[in-house]
Amino acid sequence: MILYGHWRSLAAMRVRIALALKGLAYEERSIDILGGGQFAPGFLALNPQAAVPALEAGDGPPLFQSLAILEWLEETHPAPPLLPKDARGRARVRALALISAADSHPLLVPRVRDRLARQFGAGEAAITAWSVHWMATGLRATEAHLARDAVPGPWSHGGAPTLADLFLYSLYAGYEQRGGSLDGMPNIARVVAACEADPCFTAAHPLRQPGAPRR
Amino acid sequence: MILYGHWRSLAAMRVRIALALKGLAYEERSIDILGGGQFAPGFLALNPQAAVPALEAGDGPPLFQSLAILEWLEETHPAPPLLPKDARGRARVRALALISAADSHPLLVPRVRDRLARQFGAGEAAITAWSVHWMATGLRATEAHLARDAVPGPWSHGGAPTLADLFLYSLYAGYEQRGGSLDGMPNIARVVAACEADPCFTAAHPLRQPGAPRR
Repeated sequence: MILYGHWRSLAAMRVRIALALKGLAYEERSIDILGGGQFAPGFLALNPQAAVPALEAGDGPPLFQSLAILEWLEETHPAPPLLPKDARGRARVRALALISAADSHPLLVPRVRDRLARQFGAGEAAITAWSVHWMATGLRATEAHLARDAVPGPWSHGGAPTLADLFLYSLYAGYEQRGGSLDGMPNIARVVAACEADPCFTAAHPLRQPGAPRR
Repeated sequence: MILYGHWRSLAAMRVRIALALKGLAYEERSIDILGGGQFAPGFLALNPQAAVPALEAGDGPPLFQSLAILEWLEETHPAPPLLPKDARGRARVRALALISAADSHPLLVPRVRDRLARQFGAGEAAITAWSVHWMATGLRATEAHLARDAVPGPWSHGGAPTLADLFLYSLYAGYEQRGGSLDGMPNIARVVAACEADPCFTAAHPLRQPGAPRR
């Protein structure tokens, strides 16, 4: 399999974690999403949406959209499972994942940062404040669900990682890089600690990829 | 089942379409998302994320996040199917749906419009321009995928509606309400025509719900 990603992409990070958890070999190719490489004709032929990640696997055009890729990995390589067996548990895990996938992360990708600068004249500090606001909003919503449901941990949905944790950890990675704090979010802190004890999660971190700045 | 929604919510609209296609009875209760009703303690107990839709069905807290609700409906009420049988087809349909679910619609919900006004002083015209920009971007990305793949229609993925069409039609509904045009998007226009010929889709339209302004 070939993963088209970028060191900074939180969406590529989630796919990396799943590939590692399932023990699947792949090669990663970097698309320069900060320099417009996603709009090059060669990449548009792979993913006309002009976004990473995309996953080349078998025949047909590459899979795209991180959650769709993860569901496909789950269906085609079911061990270890990243979704619970019961329909209600699967709905909970998917909904928790979607707090990050839909309502948080898409608000801070390059195309949105560019638009904020172009339409509202937003500078770097304003864009960072915007990004931190949406990551904090998503994390607080997730915390509120984890606190209410009180499902035993250490992961979001019990004793093993699920898609909810992949999305949560990738959102946290962006938040932490921008100086965000988990004060008042003990359940998120518990899940993040579980992620940080698992090399499948930590090895996928943006700052550990080729091309990333050294911290 | 009880659907917590709002006439204007494009996410509630998608759930309405699926419930109709699957022939499931439900009662809809309106949460005043334009007046902050999603932050009332009574609703936060139902969905701590403070967003509609939420679907009360059987035991346990309501399901939330439209795509998670739709996957649950698909698993628990599989007829008629809204996902293809093959894993690659399912990945394609989910990815097309996520162009709307993740990268388009979350950029124009009330919490984002409020933030644009608060952080950047955006007025109504600027917010409309922002919203139309993201809906057009999502529709153009979808058009590019439909054009490249050339899967026979009339729907996005063949001769029967799938989740991709529910998301596409809800995004189009918001776009059309704000005066957006489908010029240069013949594949989207073809799918929209299929949606508009199906009463399960048209009856779910925002402007046909109780509380909506008359056009």
